[in-house]
Amino acid sequence: MRIFEEIESEVQSYARSFPRVFNRAQGEFMWDEDGNQYLDFLAGAGTLNYGHNNPIFKPLLIDYIQNDGITHGLDMHTKAKGEFLQAFNDTILKPRGMEYMVQFTGPTGTNAVEAAMKVARNVTGQQNIVTFTNGFHGVSLGSLAATGNSHHRNAAGVSLNGVHRMPYDGYLGDGIDTTEYLDKVLSDSSSGINSPAAVLVEVVQGEGGINAASAQWLRNLQTVCRKHGILLIVDDIQAGCGRTGDFFSFEEAGIEPDIITLSKSLGGYGLPFAVVLMKPEFDQWKPGEHNGTFRGNNLAFVTAKAALENYWADDTFSKAIKRKGRYVSQRLNEIVENYGEGNFTTKGRGMFQGINCVNGELAGKITRAAFKQGLLIETSGADDQVVKFLCPLVISDENLKKGIDIVEAAIKEVCAKADEIPEEKIYFAEAV
Amino acid sequence: MRIFEEIESEVQSYARSFPRVFNRAQGEFMWDEDGNQYLDFLAGAGTLNYGHNNPIFKPLLIDYIQNDGITHGLDMHTKAKGEFLQAFNDTILKPRGMEYMVQFTGPTGTNAVEAAMKVARNVTGQQNIVTFTNGFHGVSLGSLAATGNSHHRNAAGVSLNGVHRMPYDGYLGDGIDTTEYLDKVLSDSSSGINSPAAVLVEVVQGEGGINAASAQWLRNLQTVCRKHGILLIVDDIQAGCGRTGDFFSFEEAGIEPDIITLSKSLGGYGLPFAVVLMKPEFDQWKPGEHNGTFRGNNLAFVTAKAALENYWADDTFSKAIKRKGRYVSQRLNEIVENYGEGNFTTKGRGMFQGINCVNGELAGKITRAAFKQGLLIETSGADDQVVKFLCPLVISDENLKKGIDIVEAAIKEVCAKADEIPEEKIYFAEAV
Amino acid sequence: MRIFEEIESEVQSYARSFPRVFNRAQGEFMWDEDGNQYLDFLAGAGTLNYGHNNPIFKPLLIDYIQNDGITHGLDMHTKAKGEFLQAFNDTILKPRGMEYMVQFTGPTGTNAVEAAMKVARNVTGQQNIVTFTNGFHGVSLGSLAATGNSHHRNAAGVSLNGVHRMPYDGYLGDGIDTTEYLDKVLSDSSSGINSPAAVLVEVVQGEGGINAASAQWLRNLQTVCRKHGILLIVDDIQAGCGRTGDFFSFEEAGIEPDIITLSKSLGGYGLPFAVVLMKPEFDQWKPGEHNGTFRGNNLAFVTAKAALENYWADDTFSKAIKRKGRYVSQRLNEIVENYGEGNFTTKGRGMFQGINCVNGELAGKITRAAFKQGLLIETSGADDQVVKFLCPLVISDENLKKGIDIVEAAIKEVCAKADEIPEEKIYFAEAV
Amino acid sequence: MRIFEEIESEVQSYARSFPRVFNRAQGEFMWDEDGNQYLDFLAGAGTLNYGHNNPIFKPLLIDYIQNDGITHGLDMHTKAKGEFLQAFNDTILKPRGMEYMVQFTGPTGTNAVEAAMKVARNVTGQQNIVTFTNGFHGVSLGSLAATGNSHHRNAAGVSLNGVHRMPYDGYLGDGIDTTEYLDKVLSDSSSGINSPAAVLVEVVQGEGGINAASAQWLRNLQTVCRKHGILLIVDDIQAGCGRTGDFFSFEEAGIEPDIITLSKSLGGYGLPFAVVLMKPEFDQWKPGEHNGTFRGNNLAFVTAKAALENYWADDTFSKAIKRKGRYVSQRLNEIVENYGEGNFTTKGRGMFQGINCVNGELAGKITRAAFKQGLLIETSGADDQVVKFLCPLVISDENLKKGIDIVEAAIKEVCAKADEIPEEKIYFAEAV
Repeated sequence: MRIFEEIESEVQSYARSFPRVFNRAQGEFMWDEDGNQYLDFLAGAGTLNYGHNNPIFKPLLIDYIQNDGITHGLDMHTKAKGEFLQAFNDTILKPRGMEYMVQFTGPTGTNAVEAAMKVARNVTGQQNIVTFTNGFHGVSLGSLAATGNSHHRNAAGVSLNGVHRMPYDGYLGDGIDTTEYLDKVLSDSSSGINSPAAVLVEVVQGEGGINAASAQWLRNLQTVCRKHGILLIVDDIQAGCGRTGDFFSFEEAGIEPDIITLSKSLGGYGLPFAVVLMKPEFDQWKPGEHNGTFRGNNLAFVTAKAALENYWADDTFSKAIKRKGRYVSQRLNEIVENYGEGNFTTKGRGMFQGINCVNGELAGKITRAAFKQGLLIETSGADDQVVKFLCPLVISDENLKKGIDIVEAAIKEVCAKADEIPEEKIYFAEAV
Repeated sequence: MRIFEEIESEVQSYARSFPRVFNRAQGEFMWDEDGNQYLDFLAGAGTLNYGHNNPIFKPLLIDYIQNDGITHGLDMHTKAKGEFLQAFNDTILKPRGMEYMVQFTGPTGTNAVEAAMKVARNVTGQQNIVTFTNGFHGVSLGSLAATGNSHHRNAAGVSLNGVHRMPYDGYLGDGIDTTEYLDKVLSDSSSGINSPAAVLVEVVQGEGGINAASAQWLRNLQTVCRKHGILLIVDDIQAGCGRTGDFFSFEEAGIEPDIITLSKSLGGYGLPFAVVLMKPEFDQWKPGEHNGTFRGNNLAFVTAKAALENYWADDTFSKAIKRKGRYVSQRLNEIVENYGEGNFTTKGRGMFQGINCVNGELAGKITRAAFKQGLLIETSGADDQVVKFLCPLVISDENLKKGIDIVEAAIKEVCAKADEIPEEKIYFAEAV
Repeated sequence: MRIFEEIESEVQSYARSFPRVFNRAQGEFMWDEDGNQYLDFLAGAGTLNYGHNNPIFKPLLIDYIQNDGITHGLDMHTKAKGEFLQAFNDTILKPRGMEYMVQFTGPTGTNAVEAAMKVARNVTGQQNIVTFTNGFHGVSLGSLAATGNSHHRNAAGVSLNGVHRMPYDGYLGDGIDTTEYLDKVLSDSSSGINSPAAVLVEVVQGEGGINAASAQWLRNLQTVCRKHGILLIVDDIQAGCGRTGDFFSFEEAGIEPDIITLSKSLGGYGLPFAVVLMKPEFDQWKPGEHNGTFRGNNLAFVTAKAALENYWADDTFSKAIKRKGRYVSQRLNEIVENYGEGNFTTKGRGMFQGINCVNGELAGKITRAAFKQGLLIETSGADDQVVKFLCPLVISDENLKKGIDIVEAAIKEVCAKADEIPEEKIYFAEAV
Repeated sequence: MRIFEEIESEVQSYARSFPRVFNRAQGEFMWDEDGNQYLDFLAGAGTLNYGHNNPIFKPLLIDYIQNDGITHGLDMHTKAKGEFLQAFNDTILKPRGMEYMVQFTGPTGTNAVEAAMKVARNVTGQQNIVTFTNGFHGVSLGSLAATGNSHHRNAAGVSLNGVHRMPYDGYLGDGIDTTEYLDKVLSDSSSGINSPAAVLVEVVQGEGGINAASAQWLRNLQTVCRKHGILLIVDDIQAGCGRTGDFFSFEEAGIEPDIITLSKSLGGYGLPFAVVLMKPEFDQWKPGEHNGTFRGNNLAFVTAKAALENYWADDTFSKAIKRKGRYVSQRLNEIVENYGEGNFTTKGRGMFQGINCVNGELAGKITRAAFKQGLLIETSGADDQVVKFLCPLVISDENLKKGIDIVEAAIKEVCAKADEIPEEKIYFAEAV
């Protein structure tokens, strides 16, 4: 541990929550140097949908390396890239009747978002992009402007321009469809909101507190976009690749985004990978306009292809996710009924759910208590008030139950202690 | 090839120069699907200093994967990360008497630059960053503002702010030290250049045309920075990791940058990896302020460590690079004497050299002719006028000679044809 | 007229609505070169509250000029400035228990807004300023960012940053208090709206369509500002100086803005003049930080002082405005009941009222028809859909009646013709 | 004086240098309330070229007011405006063979600059505007970006974008033509300087320290602009209206700016007035895009017309200015030879000259000593190091001599005292 204290930057974050040195991982488990086992309900913040070191992909990856397949290929055509494209077309695009061009950006989510924002601006000639309260899209300067979290925004050191922030689904209260407000400002030449190039939206806001937009709201959003000639960009980096039950999180809503960003679990094995999908008419890039040294991370192409062929060739995997998601729903609903004195609520959908504990301090106590019982789990939301259940989608039913059991026990323990403290100090910190 | 035409975005760039499907690579060679062999003088744009699929690193990588080492670790402490840090400290920092903190950013160069700019701005409370003509630092919005190339800048779709551009070494002509101009505007409260947080500079501008700053200029630049209390950031992403002969490109000048960015060949095997080094007093990050899903790409830690231990434990490798660099110098000097009618010039230093053909069309003809002879080589510079020799540093003497021979033959061929065309149309396009 | 066509810029605007050459004016009347008389219901867009060439001020102005009083004084102390300040303190500030410092800015409204925005940003160290849909604050770059109208915004030629736009009172529909939305985003650290320096608001939005905020909404707005430690700036340039019945438009609401801008009728005689009032604790200017050649327009100080002493020493004038305002209300209510088939509505308060004709084309026909009858009257609003009654406050009852009669007749005439056209084409253009 | 201390903002500037209450002015003289007379070598910072309360214009102004001429006319056609336009065309434009459209902006210099920048950006579709070190163009947000002085820039509270700063004539030393540097960055697609809409330049930088560009440099600048298709804007607000000897300061250089801004002495009598002149092909404004309440300050039209007809109908006035300018040159040259131990230099041209005392503290002592002798004179430059001679152009020879005599005596006095202090502390503060 000493070397980390000695020369690793203060910027480290998860290492503070889980102060161990990890050295091995398999499926839904990680082990530290002392041989302790941890059940992983963090899953690389949504990157390990297929589990750690997926045993189906592993031999393929090793084989590829063994045979001196291209590792680093800039944006040159390689066999591995071609096979990934073919698999993506065959298992994802074609079966859904989707026609999109694939851009390989630098292999990080934020790079894909930067590219998506650029292409939308260039295609439309407009600078403004509509983003939403509590959205998270990355921390490089372009995507950071779209990100809502002030902790990240304040680190910019410069002003963050080029976006207009609108209220997400539900932000103005239950009866109010916030897409009507969007429609109004776009229809009003004196609203002061510049004509936007695009709307950039997450179907489920992971970092923002696992806020899930309704299918109707998403359809209304698409209608408003179409009406005003603005592009609809779905950032599916965290919610995509099966997390909500379908490959794309927006499938349930039946919308057809103009541009889609994917990353995180796309690579299958946790390797850096990101793409932008865009309808052919918007693929107006000039050669190399958006580039990056690692946009040809071929090892990721190999495992990404394996993931598509093994998990998305039919609907077996999708059904399994949905089944597990229902189980999670049921358990979390029970928990919020039994604990938190009516203040806790459940959030999210599919395998992308959480418990809003209202109070970030309380949620932190719960995840720390769970960690002591061998569970890696984190919080999200503006005040870190939501306990986020983000386990590998391939988790066994037994371990899924076990993980939730640990959280339930942690909540029970923490809430018991909390009873000793005056109630309003705990649950309603936000309102103070 | 069909799938690329069908669904890969128009943004592709190198794939246009080298329209083959590559499927295997070793050392300084790549092979396409038809079994054709290519000598690689592009080297992943500086990412493959140790060659493709370096045979020393390969078994270590396979072994790590085989044993289910952590692949994706967010920013958690892992054994692989700890060992990389230890090796970096032991082989690079300590021997040079350098004390720096290491930040693992998203694993792309642009992400490291974004982080470096943020930390400089936050530490100083100033927004402005001085950058240089012909600099290249990436294409996400923060680093794109620092990049000079209008092809990339115009793709932003929004205004690029927060930087002030100054002339690089030599830009105002031979007798003029451009750091004096910088000193003057910084000393003049009415110059209109806001007090900067930092100066961001490359020691050799790779994309800008292989412009190498003199050691004296770099020392003067550091003096001006110290005088005005502004941070000196060296972007060593392309020039670092041995390319110029030393591990850091600035070692020869004896300067001590406050912040350093590294990426490209840092990972050793071509895997995405990037870090920011900063003097301890500037490591004022709050936890997680700058984050990113893939900042714990542990496979890269494994190969990066192997690269440091195998190539940088003593000065053998450094001496070899310098020796080869002298050979390249000698050859390129001969070429510019023999061809181009006195208009060609050599550029760069170490294994980071090029021939300025003045005219981008001509340079393109040369690289295309070389490609037909089995050499992968590219151009750089504002008008793509510089033929850029960027082969793996581990290249054999024989293949180094062979590659340069191919370019020389290509130049001979192209210049011969060019003689049939009126001279001024060819060499002085820039001046028209 | 020829010289105007020959060398005056295309930017001219009112000259297009009223294509005459005017050469004399008195009270509520203007005359053109041919001796035609016009009743002025435009009043210099709110600058001529005391009428043209007010006969009380005129001899004082002439006397001052005759005696070589200082005309141009930069920001030096002059007798005329001192006397204005004394009068302003005695008749306006002290009687209202207001303690404010007075800044003489460049003598235009936009310059005062620029100064107010600067001081708010500097005092708080925040860049963001909350502005409202349909607000108008001027067209120099700082105030233009705060202005909602896209016709003006699009002329900027650069991006307009540093503000966040919120819905004005009533913008989200009747039941919704938009200050609650403001409170929510300011309370939510992940809302993506940067902590603002200030809220900049008009009590009645003149250019935006004579939208009047309710007293309760203004009080709630002040409460939200106080809660979050942000400054409340009231731009009282058009609505102030008696237009709504009190000297300041916000008096009825009982709020205490931190910063107030005044211009237009402040000078009394139509001479350029503008000030910023700020609570003493916010007067943190350094000498000359915000300057301007004409910030000492002493002729305006002379007439401004005369206006204060003659009209604001007691409440006689205020009562007269309110009485006339009630008459305007009554008449406009009758008109919207009788015409427009239920689609017309009245807007505004005091002597700052209008008729929303929904459709800009229709409103334009009405004002053009009125002009033919010798009435100068204009439209406002995003689509120029509101006929704006903005006559001098000193107008005689007879002429006030006469002006409204002309408009009523114009409406009758225009609506009669409109009946021949399919209804939905006329009244509901906005909704299409 | 008490009322100023009580309620006038801390922003006041000249009032600190000249702490008197002035109440009367004539020609080159001002008087304070106690009857003390002051010789005015500040002249409203260049606004009072025709002296205070010019006796020729005064009766015309009084007559106009007496007869109820239009005072405030928005942008409507008025007799006074028409007559001004005719006089401007007849005495200024036509005799010089100039064809320009006249835009009446808000009546302040900064407003004219804002309009000029807008029109250049809109006409070209480019955002960037090239400005120069030590330039001053106003302090509203658009023009402030173009202004070099950090005292004013730092008050913005937001980042100032959309301009690129280049070195003014002489800034890089004697042998270097800085327009060559401009040409180089504009010719280099990788220079990082975005294609500009325009170059914005002062022929003599008044606030920047009375730096006068050479005629050759201005011609070269125009050549570079023409070559790259960018507009040339001359900000002639301070140097125009005869200050350098000709009506426009650029006449000597023989250039033909695309856009010209005028204000300050344009109104003749010190009344707020500003215009933008643009070649007809650039007058692409849409109606009312750039507006402002006081753009029809008719009193200024009356006196502006009188100034043109009385002073610019032939070259008598111009010759007199040049003659006096030569006298100023001679005297200032003698002074810098006799005092300052070789460190003082003269600056400027025509009646726009100064003495660079290198050290702002010293210059301040000189102007304060002069004030004690009844002379109003100010400093300019980044460090207020230049004593600025800016008297009315109509000053009598006797009073011109008297004013310079006072400064000379002040310099003698201050330098004598300064001898008692170690030299380097005084003259070379800048270099420390």
